[in-house]
Amino acid sequence: MMSFYEGVLILNRSFNRSFDQLRPIRFTEQYLSHPAGSVLAEAGATRVICAVSATESVPPWMKAQKVPGGWLTCEYSLLPSSTGERSKREINTGRPSGRTMEIQRLIGRSLRNCVDLEKLGEITLYADCDVIDADGGTRCDSITGASLALELAIRGKLGRAEAFRERIAAVSVGIVHGEVLLDLDYQEDSQADVDMNVVMTQSGKFVEIQGTSEGAPFERKRLDELLALAEHGIRQIFAAQQAVVDRVLSGGEETQA
Amino acid sequence: MMSFYEGVLILNRSFNRSFDQLRPIRFTEQYLSHPAGSVLAEAGATRVICAVSATESVPPWMKAQKVPGGWLTCEYSLLPSSTGERSKREINTGRPSGRTMEIQRLIGRSLRNCVDLEKLGEITLYADCDVIDADGGTRCDSITGASLALELAIRGKLGRAEAFRERIAAVSVGIVHGEVLLDLDYQEDSQADVDMNVVMTQSGKFVEIQGTSEGAPFERKRLDELLALAEHGIRQIFAAQQAVVDRVLSGGEETQA
Amino acid sequence: MMSFYEGVLILNRSFNRSFDQLRPIRFTEQYLSHPAGSVLAEAGATRVICAVSATESVPPWMKAQKVPGGWLTCEYSLLPSSTGERSKREINTGRPSGRTMEIQRLIGRSLRNCVDLEKLGEITLYADCDVIDADGGTRCDSITGASLALELAIRGKLGRAEAFRERIAAVSVGIVHGEVLLDLDYQEDSQADVDMNVVMTQSGKFVEIQGTSEGAPFERKRLDELLALAEHGIRQIFAAQQAVVDRVLSGGEETQA
Amino acid sequence: MMSFYEGVLILNRSFNRSFDQLRPIRFTEQYLSHPAGSVLAEAGATRVICAVSATESVPPWMKAQKVPGGWLTCEYSLLPSSTGERSKREINTGRPSGRTMEIQRLIGRSLRNCVDLEKLGEITLYADCDVIDADGGTRCDSITGASLALELAIRGKLGRAEAFRERIAAVSVGIVHGEVLLDLDYQEDSQADVDMNVVMTQSGKFVEIQGTSEGAPFERKRLDELLALAEHGIRQIFAAQQAVVDRVLSGGEETQA
Amino acid sequence: MMSFYEGVLILNRSFNRSFDQLRPIRFTEQYLSHPAGSVLAEAGATRVICAVSATESVPPWMKAQKVPGGWLTCEYSLLPSSTGERSKREINTGRPSGRTMEIQRLIGRSLRNCVDLEKLGEITLYADCDVIDADGGTRCDSITGASLALELAIRGKLGRAEAFRERIAAVSVGIVHGEVLLDLDYQEDSQADVDMNVVMTQSGKFVEIQGTSEGAPFERKRLDELLALAEHGIRQIFAAQQAVVDRVLSGGEETQA
Amino acid sequence: MMSFYEGVLILNRSFNRSFDQLRPIRFTEQYLSHPAGSVLAEAGATRVICAVSATESVPPWMKAQKVPGGWLTCEYSLLPSSTGERSKREINTGRPSGRTMEIQRLIGRSLRNCVDLEKLGEITLYADCDVIDADGGTRCDSITGASLALELAIRGKLGRAEAFRERIAAVSVGIVHGEVLLDLDYQEDSQADVDMNVVMTQSGKFVEIQGTSEGAPFERKRLDELLALAEHGIRQIFAAQQAVVDRVLSGGEETQA
Repeated sequence: MMSFYEGVLILNRSFNRSFDQLRPIRFTEQYLSHPAGSVLAEAGATRVICAVSATESVPPWMKAQKVPGGWLTCEYSLLPSSTGERSKREINTGRPSGRTMEIQRLIGRSLRNCVDLEKLGEITLYADCDVIDADGGTRCDSITGASLALELAIRGKLGRAEAFRERIAAVSVGIVHGEVLLDLDYQEDSQADVDMNVVMTQSGKFVEIQGTSEGAPFERKRLDELLALAEHGIRQIFAAQQAVVDRVLSGGEETQA
Repeated sequence: MMSFYEGVLILNRSFNRSFDQLRPIRFTEQYLSHPAGSVLAEAGATRVICAVSATESVPPWMKAQKVPGGWLTCEYSLLPSSTGERSKREINTGRPSGRTMEIQRLIGRSLRNCVDLEKLGEITLYADCDVIDADGGTRCDSITGASLALELAIRGKLGRAEAFRERIAAVSVGIVHGEVLLDLDYQEDSQADVDMNVVMTQSGKFVEIQGTSEGAPFERKRLDELLALAEHGIRQIFAAQQAVVDRVLSGGEETQA
Repeated sequence: MMSFYEGVLILNRSFNRSFDQLRPIRFTEQYLSHPAGSVLAEAGATRVICAVSATESVPPWMKAQKVPGGWLTCEYSLLPSSTGERSKREINTGRPSGRTMEIQRLIGRSLRNCVDLEKLGEITLYADCDVIDADGGTRCDSITGASLALELAIRGKLGRAEAFRERIAAVSVGIVHGEVLLDLDYQEDSQADVDMNVVMTQSGKFVEIQGTSEGAPFERKRLDELLALAEHGIRQIFAAQQAVVDRVLSGGEETQA
Repeated sequence: MMSFYEGVLILNRSFNRSFDQLRPIRFTEQYLSHPAGSVLAEAGATRVICAVSATESVPPWMKAQKVPGGWLTCEYSLLPSSTGERSKREINTGRPSGRTMEIQRLIGRSLRNCVDLEKLGEITLYADCDVIDADGGTRCDSITGASLALELAIRGKLGRAEAFRERIAAVSVGIVHGEVLLDLDYQEDSQADVDMNVVMTQSGKFVEIQGTSEGAPFERKRLDELLALAEHGIRQIFAAQQAVVDRVLSGGEETQA
Repeated sequence: MMSFYEGVLILNRSFNRSFDQLRPIRFTEQYLSHPAGSVLAEAGATRVICAVSATESVPPWMKAQKVPGGWLTCEYSLLPSSTGERSKREINTGRPSGRTMEIQRLIGRSLRNCVDLEKLGEITLYADCDVIDADGGTRCDSITGASLALELAIRGKLGRAEAFRERIAAVSVGIVHGEVLLDLDYQEDSQADVDMNVVMTQSGKFVEIQGTSEGAPFERKRLDELLALAEHGIRQIFAAQQAVVDRVLSGGEETQA
Repeated sequence: MMSFYEGVLILNRSFNRSFDQLRPIRFTEQYLSHPAGSVLAEAGATRVICAVSATESVPPWMKAQKVPGGWLTCEYSLLPSSTGERSKREINTGRPSGRTMEIQRLIGRSLRNCVDLEKLGEITLYADCDVIDADGGTRCDSITGASLALELAIRGKLGRAEAFRERIAAVSVGIVHGEVLLDLDYQEDSQADVDMNVVMTQSGKFVEIQGTSEGAPFERKRLDELLALAEHGIRQIFAAQQAVVDRVLSGGEETQA
């Protein structure tokens, strides 16, 4: 990817995007038969099956510490065939990789901002994010899709609307060859000097900010640019989520941003 | 499921089927972006993503024993949210369950009948079967879908048509409340006295037969009935596979039996 | 093994056997001091220690689902020094191999046909099959020996004769260089085109049939030949088991078929 | 901890600190006999042994991808007796916890900004951070101490000063009961609404920013306050590191900020 | 076990033994078909299959450090059904227990005194000790039996007599209810205040001494008594080993002490 | 290490010691903030953090067998950077090494002689021995330091002085190039023909004796010399322990032998 940045347009981003454009978003709700809520969340060529299931128990530490209410946790996985070069199935190494654990902890922590755990009652919600096609931004797409699946589950099948606080969404931003870019695909991500994931609530507050230099530490000024770009992108993602929620309440089936 | 068997029709099988009917079959080819071949194989409400990827190496034991040619292996997994009650992710126990290992060994062994390993060259083919919705018959649906993905990969992207021997397909048959049934769904399977999986080649030969009594040993006569019913079903599955292969060669996209 | 098959006799099978002869069978009962029942089961040069022990508990899933009665499970292992080339001890890889899991699931499933689990009471029976010498057919020899150890345990030390339903036995059959053979030894097994394990009850019904083509799918006609040969062999094994049971009731010590 | 925030001083922070004060810092260099560089890094009651060792090899993926130069990785661990309630030793669960993996990945990634991996030559540097007393901020104290141990190792025993780019340091900031605080101890951390770890280079650039809401998403304005406070604290840590480096070059032994 | 010690005879030891008598010893050589050497070693009701196999490789650390010659290692295991109450199979916990590791390290270390590793050539000898009946003293019986299997293997099938240095044997001694006893069975062992295992060479030197107080530290005087008793017992074991070696050289089959 | 032994002095032992001298001993008590008792135990260049913590529970087997009182167990670990060449962190192999398990079993078993478990009440004491610098004798230094930490914990913070029986201490002795030596450092240990660890009580009784020949079996006479030398050394260690106990009771801080 050689990019010639001239004010507005980078000619060769995927989907012919400018630096501040998202990839096409698409949500297919109730994608699976069994879980309380499920969504196939697509961001360009990245596709993640997000499913939320409820079990009638809480973790041992909650019982031990007598914490009232419920719990929410996340498990994330890449299908071996989701990546350019086939990834080894983690079960064959006997343990999740550090990357997997870092990502599922981030997703779980973020999603717990969406629910009032006390009002949930004594259940554990599992948010399963299984990536079937990976082209960059899988953790952000997982958060965005899982928030939607969670909302559909809690306000729908589980019938506990009062426990749902607020929707969240996430997007990646980065600095590639000196330019700030919104929603990096795999090619861009692999060349980025700075990579940042931002998770926000619909009311415009920050849930998580994770900015990482890949060998090129960055100045405060660039940080501000990245945060502004992320906010810009996330607002559009919220609109796409809203469209699904509106449609599902009135019986439709699928949306596209 | 109370079933009143009167000659031809069992009133309450899913999809209103008679004892000798398959569930609707549907194959969506090139379902994933990256692998050499991929198929979403659906049998009623059971859905499996079957993907075939190639890597440029062979297992250590082949090198040690100087076995010429390539290898083919299978990995099978249930998504946690694919089952009625959420299944625990196997990575959290550190090892695949006995059921998983038994199934993936069966699939791999069966698929190796489709290829001439020597003509394949020094590569390993991975057939990944990831179940996204489980409603009985997942191992048979995996074999049928993976054979198709394998054929599309070898005769397509991998360009080694000469190494492809023959297509295979599989179906389950069983005895439920005393009746022989074709293509059991989960409800039927959980009440079966005898459960049998049959894998055949397109030329009508047997690749695998696995018949198991669940506490009710069966006579030779019933075995013959089960085998006949399986052959009857498998012939229809071959027709559906053929339709996909025909269409892909002339550029279409999806078929339904 | 070059074999010249002329109607009746294959000159160079081990023990100078014809195609339809078993290897010598020998059972040594109460081979170990501690378990409720134990048998050293020998089929030619294959030797397996089969032991059945009872523990006063049932698996957690039975309690959770309130299933009444007891349980029976099997664990199978090869001693490292039981094979021609020493096998690695599985504990050093941290998990049982797929082969081990497949075999012990088969044995356990088969043996559960011998007992009325409800009448057993709230105990778990462990059938341990530890192969000390391996020369082919270890899973069949394990089933045959474990059925005997189980019968001696339940009708003997455990004093729950009413929970014993029926004896089972198993034998392997196969197609080697185009011929059907009964009770394959290791040399024959390693050259077989088709390998089939058949488990039957003393009353002549099928408990398990597992037929596998090793790269050479087989026709229905050959399947029928294999099944007939297996039935022929299993009848003789039942006679050998009967002799032990008869003798133990009247106080003898060892038998040979 | 009840805190009455009146402009400058919070009366009951540990060490009687105001909201913008660090805990006392203390570095004991060459704390261990064997590694190329080692430092006991203390921040208040938090104490971490940071050691940097070199081995003559690089990870397999570097060889496979022919990446020139060396590598740096980190391993982090809490001694069981380092925490208020004894922590279970991770070896007994067979795998590092998600928290451990997340932290050691953060430290390793941050430290790789300190070195020019290509100039390092074909070696792997291990930065071991073993916490012997934990009172909050262990990951930041580890980064600060390991950067120092790394500098002493590379510019000292390893004699590869040209591969050292720049020193880094880290500090935590957070929002507790509505107030922004610098360098949280365990008591403060366990009550924080927002927890942020900031890693910077001596030249004032950002290496990592990880901000997390613990159930209370935060506004952009608070983010700016937190970042300013972190920069303020990190500048003092750099001064303390500098004092050690200066002293070690002229032969002294220990410093205190 | 109530014991009335009156000078010479303790009435109720198993096999009606006095304090200084061994249990009956019995060795069955070439007990298994495949390994280079194998012995069923029986000491009273304790029975261990000891097998020695050779593989054409040495451990990686020997290659790395360029240590010339071969290696010898031991693996020890209890069959689940070898103990009074069935023992859990270690594979199900994923790792050998501490007891198992301690024992197999002891046996391996002891046996390495029997061979000149340099003269052995570049092979690894595996001494597998699998206990089929456990009634106390399994580690000593393993050492004694494995030394014999090793001698038969090296001086026999492996044809490297020049690499065999000297035979070893082991016995346990202990203090039970205040009395010193030779060759404790399980009942005695479980009540012992002091438990000691002694391994010696045929030339009368010590290879290992492991004495342990079980809550009752012992004086130097008792230690001397225990060592004398152990020497007394080991001399008899050497005689029994010698008888087997003599017989095998002249073609006999089995011996009993 | 070339050693010229002439009656009394070996010129080149570390710290210029004669054959019967200990390395300098130093104990720093209450080295950690949290555990009930902790000691940094130094023997020459070997340094071990010994910590004793109490938890309000007992192992499942004690409950199952209704054993009254409490329990004491030990966990031992080498910091990766404690050894000359960096050691791999055991968590990365998923299980403790055989060496680690053997050592922590020895330490735990020895320490249980110090306490009256019944008087302890229903708690489990964990003795954590974490080696930060290894120069030979780490298991003995761990025992000596942990006995002290245990005494300070039980007679101090835990307030159960009545459960403390007696102090223990340990030392290594060995035969190097034909000479008996007290308290071997790493250099000496790696060249030893015989290596023996001796654990004794303050009242002069033996708790454990573990003598191992490293390829050179030893005579009874040498054993007696080794035991005498060990007793001689241990008496001095008890004096050093006593000094700490005396000081801590009257409020001092640190001692040196």
